[in-house]
Amino acid sequence: MTMNDKRHIEIFDTTLRDGEQAPGASLQPEQKIELAHQLASLGIDVIEPGFPISSPGEFAAVQAISRQLQNVEICGFARAVKGDIDAAVRATADAARRRIHLFISSSDIHIEHQLRRPRSEVVATAREMVSYARQFSDIVEFTAMDAARTKMDDLIEMIEVVIEAGASIINLPDTVGYALPHEYGEMFRRVREGARGGDQVRYSAHCHNDLGLAVANSLAAIANGASQIEVTINGVGERTGNAALEELVMALETRGDVLGATTNIKLEQLYETSRQISRAMHFPIAYNKPVVGRNAFQHESGIHQDGLLKNRNTYEIMDPEALGIPRSMIILGKHSGRHALKDRVRKYGFEPDEQQMEQLYTVFKETADQQKVVSDDQLLQMVSQTMNIPAQDYELVELQVTAGSMTDRMAAVRMRAGGVEQSYSAVGSGPVEAAIHAIGQSISDDITFVDMEIHALSGGEEANAEAAVTVERAGREFRGTAIHSDIVMAAGLAYVAACNAAGLKAESSESGEVAHV
Amino acid sequence: MTMNDKRHIEIFDTTLRDGEQAPGASLQPEQKIELAHQLASLGIDVIEPGFPISSPGEFAAVQAISRQLQNVEICGFARAVKGDIDAAVRATADAARRRIHLFISSSDIHIEHQLRRPRSEVVATAREMVSYARQFSDIVEFTAMDAARTKMDDLIEMIEVVIEAGASIINLPDTVGYALPHEYGEMFRRVREGARGGDQVRYSAHCHNDLGLAVANSLAAIANGASQIEVTINGVGERTGNAALEELVMALETRGDVLGATTNIKLEQLYETSRQISRAMHFPIAYNKPVVGRNAFQHESGIHQDGLLKNRNTYEIMDPEALGIPRSMIILGKHSGRHALKDRVRKYGFEPDEQQMEQLYTVFKETADQQKVVSDDQLLQMVSQTMNIPAQDYELVELQVTAGSMTDRMAAVRMRAGGVEQSYSAVGSGPVEAAIHAIGQSISDDITFVDMEIHALSGGEEANAEAAVTVERAGREFRGTAIHSDIVMAAGLAYVAACNAAGLKAESSESGEVAHV
Repeated sequence: MTMNDKRHIEIFDTTLRDGEQAPGASLQPEQKIELAHQLASLGIDVIEPGFPISSPGEFAAVQAISRQLQNVEICGFARAVKGDIDAAVRATADAARRRIHLFISSSDIHIEHQLRRPRSEVVATAREMVSYARQFSDIVEFTAMDAARTKMDDLIEMIEVVIEAGASIINLPDTVGYALPHEYGEMFRRVREGARGGDQVRYSAHCHNDLGLAVANSLAAIANGASQIEVTINGVGERTGNAALEELVMALETRGDVLGATTNIKLEQLYETSRQISRAMHFPIAYNKPVVGRNAFQHESGIHQDGLLKNRNTYEIMDPEALGIPRSMIILGKHSGRHALKDRVRKYGFEPDEQQMEQLYTVFKETADQQKVVSDDQLLQMVSQTMNIPAQDYELVELQVTAGSMTDRMAAVRMRAGGVEQSYSAVGSGPVEAAIHAIGQSISDDITFVDMEIHALSGGEEANAEAAVTVERAGREFRGTAIHSDIVMAAGLAYVAACNAAGLKAESSESGEVAHV
Repeated sequence: MTMNDKRHIEIFDTTLRDGEQAPGASLQPEQKIELAHQLASLGIDVIEPGFPISSPGEFAAVQAISRQLQNVEICGFARAVKGDIDAAVRATADAARRRIHLFISSSDIHIEHQLRRPRSEVVATAREMVSYARQFSDIVEFTAMDAARTKMDDLIEMIEVVIEAGASIINLPDTVGYALPHEYGEMFRRVREGARGGDQVRYSAHCHNDLGLAVANSLAAIANGASQIEVTINGVGERTGNAALEELVMALETRGDVLGATTNIKLEQLYETSRQISRAMHFPIAYNKPVVGRNAFQHESGIHQDGLLKNRNTYEIMDPEALGIPRSMIILGKHSGRHALKDRVRKYGFEPDEQQMEQLYTVFKETADQQKVVSDDQLLQMVSQTMNIPAQDYELVELQVTAGSMTDRMAAVRMRAGGVEQSYSAVGSGPVEAAIHAIGQSISDDITFVDMEIHALSGGEEANAEAAVTVERAGREFRGTAIHSDIVMAAGLAYVAACNAAGLKAESSESGEVAHV
């Protein structure tokens, strides 16, 4: 099958509406506007930037996005009530292309227990409100909320009515994440074939991940005629979230041979978009998150590492660099062999001789057996010791922080840079920030701090913190990680490791390959 | 369909083998033994506790687990080579029930690029090694590694040979997470129907989640005759991990009406098992992780909250309490309404009058509009102020920490407990630990610290940390959360909030309901 034979699937991004309903993930209007631009760069077809009636800030964000994003279709979200529709219409008035998106529940359980009105009234409301919305917008999308738990006859009745009233996109969501793939696909087939006018409209899927089936259900809908999928970045959303954009798109991309469908998504923007959403929503990406997680392209077992070094396709079905993920080096841990260690050390630009390599491996194994992973700063220290060379541009010689409720948080550091030791101090809104500011004073001006992530889990006594810092130099990103029982030390060491990676690669790499250590 | 009509699906847990291959998740032998006992309590049928040949520690762990777990079948994992099999046989010798589990690659890409031997030799090795293993164990499981990318004729040939040699369980893994559900199911059907002797053996599925399809693929295998599923807790494992036990089990449980299959898993142990694995592997559970994630039963939007208060089934398909998850209170954020706020405050044991409630709602909304969520400690402070009562047993009046590379990490706190202020100090391996130790001295002896989780994401200037602490009192767990720009303050406030929750509920609740705030 050639590219041109593939069906085009519209990607409807609801990260800023349903995604924002993830507990704790709410955004300021300015953040929404910034993120909407990134989503446009990613190549989404339709954006749902918020729920205009819900607050003045929300309204203003949808309005600003409508004005600024001229190449994306803007969707105004509304309950099936006039006030909501009016707000959605006004907020999206300046969009180059727009649609109004109405929803009302279709299942018995929602109608009886939440709406508490006769079904006939609910259907009549759906009809009236679709007609009302059509006065303002040629394109009206209608969502039968909880469609997946709706009796087929009831669903078909409601869909026939709204098609007649002028809805041209029919969304059949699995609102509570209950459907199985074959059921969800079957629902699309039956509505499409069974509803009067059902062959004249487009269909949309909207899946939640409560049973881990959101992507599979979305694919089942595509196989049964849906041409639009509603998704969020990182799968954020109510409860366990929506179908993840990056998973769905990469399933279509990787298995295009069988699925015969494609999207407009610019794959090389996936990783950057994922990180921006994660930071703005304060929503960490799971280590094992498909496509964009820390471990997605990390292979731990010796058997897998051996296979990868022979031929990447043995254990890798996607190319991380094509997703904008700098080629990860293989993570090092107790399962790692000599080959993997050597490979990593060489990527840092070092060429230990055989004896040094053996020494390094022994030290490495001792550390690896004792702890979870060997972090970059530890590896660089081992290299420095076994090869008896200054492996690092920067070294954190000493760190001291004071913090608490009644004082300014401050940090003092002693840094060695270019062989010279010097002390620096700084304040910050917390001890970590103060330490980063203090260390930053010793770092070359052309290296800039990009972002930081810290995770600590503790079951009592032992409380290791793991920190990852990303820095940028000459348009390329470098990452450093560190593990320490002191959370502030972990952050400081990760920052220093990232800066060392930036320095080393800049000197050692001719190819311009991005180091992501 | 009644319970008795349902097919029994064996749950094969490989958390301690494939799960441990997650980068950074490696375990000490003692940890494996402890976790194996929890997995047995969960009701798994078969456990794969490690890879005996890989190290003496690994061997010892498998041996100890074989001796201690007399009600679970123990699986000894081995490459198709004598040394591996011998180690697996010896390590599992004392098991009450055991099987040997052999694997060799079946796909062209693995055979050509990694094994670099003719297919005929690989098939011959499979035959010989299955025969060899059968001398020691009646039950031999054979895995055709990368089965999902193997040509059907090649796969059938290899499976016929190993069945003839005595393998009675055939595992057809999707090693690289490449298969689509309909393909993966189809593979089982064709092997079962097409291989000589294929109707005389049991089938096992083993799926990876690279495209987000691991659970859907496992269900497809079940629908096509697989009676065993290989899974890990929290979906840990190589790269993006294996099918998550809790997702698969809850899909079977929730949709037993259609799937007609069930397991021996004790649902009420799911949450506790998930947390133990997360802590031991230093592997945080994603907020939006199905079944066990922080948000899995948290409903943010006003529409959903309204529905839930009327009838939980409107938006909830599983009962968190049945999974051992203390009934979460609805999380509070900018989308929350008066009802949700009132509901929460009452769960804390307070009954504000109408005027107080209005005041509280105003203060709450101001905070909620400014930040992501309103944390428990903030809510308790608001209650205390608006109702003009001491809402808290404990108050963190002042906190001061000193930490760094060259000194002991120490903390001094001033706590108010029972109306009396007093100062305490402590040391720790990091500033957070020192602060927890210092605060702990002021806390009633019957409240014990259970665990803590801290996450901080920063894109530069703003660097909020979010902490959650769990404590135990009289056999019940209580959780407190806090957000602060100072990571140590966040941890301290979360601990104090958890202790306050424990104190309040203990006094106000007659029902013995667990508070999980």
